[in-house]
Amino acid sequence: MTINAASIGLGWWSGELAKSIHNNSHLIQITSCYSRNKNKRVKFANQFGSRHHDSYEAVLADSTIDAVIISTPHSLHAEHVIQAAEAGKHVFVEKPFTLTVESARKATAACRSSGVVLAVGHNRRFSASATRLKEWLVEGVFDTLLHLEANFSAPGALTYTPDRWRANRLESPAGGIAALGIHLIDLLCYFAGSITRVSAQAKRRAVTVDMDDTTSVLFEFDSGATGYLGCMFACPYTSFLNIYGTNANAFAKVDTDKLSAQIS
Amino acid sequence: MTINAASIGLGWWSGELAKSIHNNSHLIQITSCYSRNKNKRVKFANQFGSRHHDSYEAVLADSTIDAVIISTPHSLHAEHVIQAAEAGKHVFVEKPFTLTVESARKATAACRSSGVVLAVGHNRRFSASATRLKEWLVEGVFDTLLHLEANFSAPGALTYTPDRWRANRLESPAGGIAALGIHLIDLLCYFAGSITRVSAQAKRRAVTVDMDDTTSVLFEFDSGATGYLGCMFACPYTSFLNIYGTNANAFAKVDTDKLSAQIS
Repeated sequence: MTINAASIGLGWWSGELAKSIHNNSHLIQITSCYSRNKNKRVKFANQFGSRHHDSYEAVLADSTIDAVIISTPHSLHAEHVIQAAEAGKHVFVEKPFTLTVESARKATAACRSSGVVLAVGHNRRFSASATRLKEWLVEGVFDTLLHLEANFSAPGALTYTPDRWRANRLESPAGGIAALGIHLIDLLCYFAGSITRVSAQAKRRAVTVDMDDTTSVLFEFDSGATGYLGCMFACPYTSFLNIYGTNANAFAKVDTDKLSAQIS
Repeated sequence: MTINAASIGLGWWSGELAKSIHNNSHLIQITSCYSRNKNKRVKFANQFGSRHHDSYEAVLADSTIDAVIISTPHSLHAEHVIQAAEAGKHVFVEKPFTLTVESARKATAACRSSGVVLAVGHNRRFSASATRLKEWLVEGVFDTLLHLEANFSAPGALTYTPDRWRANRLESPAGGIAALGIHLIDLLCYFAGSITRVSAQAKRRAVTVDMDDTTSVLFEFDSGATGYLGCMFACPYTSFLNIYGTNANAFAKVDTDKLSAQIS
């Protein structure tokens, strides 16, 4: 069985997702697409050999479509997930899942109630370094887990202009967290458990659009370990995740899968 | 002119300081010492060819002594600095300077009032990497300074027993900050200015004595930049300081003077 999926929201990232599927997977294929912009959907359909629909409702009404791949602006995710679930379509939605706890709970409940599969695009969790770190944690390599540190920073917002959909506080709350930092928050939770307490500071230091670019966060996890995330959206690219335990420390460059460890 | 100094508080670190002076400096020599423990002062005097006094008051009353080198327990620093200042002796005191803002202000005022020189042992500030990072900051290499991150961690407190003077919350508040982290707080202030706001979490995760071992802190500096310090006292040794700016990031291993940079 092949999953017939429609790609919704046709920006840069939907193309990256489509390239990873097109001519690569026997399990899923992109059979349609939709964007508010007609040029974008025609171009996408031509590039990936799919049909295109002229509304999201039309996609959801199409019984040949099993699933939707949602890469629309952050603020629309909750609504689009709920609509898909109510139409009985399985959902892959890009991170951030939704922008509030309340809308996240509604969207999750809608999928559960309809019995559709819900997946969120936290791709770093499947990296070789994340997989290995998780193995080390399960094996007890670190002994008592004390603290985790992560940073995901990039220069992107320095070039944002106000017409970019991401270039405002509504779509990009807490600076680069929605675009960048959330990937490492997902890894921190994968390694140390759910977050029970947060303290954060976010400031605009250099970007010209109305969003923050310098964010730092302290966490407490339900495992008792603590954590930190730094996320700047106005400096050269950096990505790391460090784990400190009584028996070992580990230092990972998640995006390049470089991993080093100190064993005591 | 040679400064005649007396070493006060004769533990491991006073020996390291004395070794750096003995037969090495034409500017300062250790001519006496004092510890409550008579065996320690006799041994120290024999090792470094100095006299020894049988009370701190006797040291301070000795007109041949120009200065004191104080490496007594943290909680005694303020009192010992003030006594030295009132006796007209110059002061070198180990970090942490004192344990409260109030006592720090009193000790500083006493030195100022007596016209004696006061120095605090923040030795990392004089490292090659710290010196170079400061040059880069002054030259504007980073352009807008966004954020700084530091970590200083070590396994030491895992082996602490209750009889160690450092092994309690009074002498080691906020976990490893007084022993380790304060070195990097000094560097953060050297690079980004005075601290105007702090948010911190400190927990005991693994050590058996009554002190915390897992501490993390967020800072805001008067320059507008923000910062983070991680300080674990129960994991393998780590020390780094990262600087993020709109034009460059720098990554320093302060204790080994390894320094790398990303220029955008």
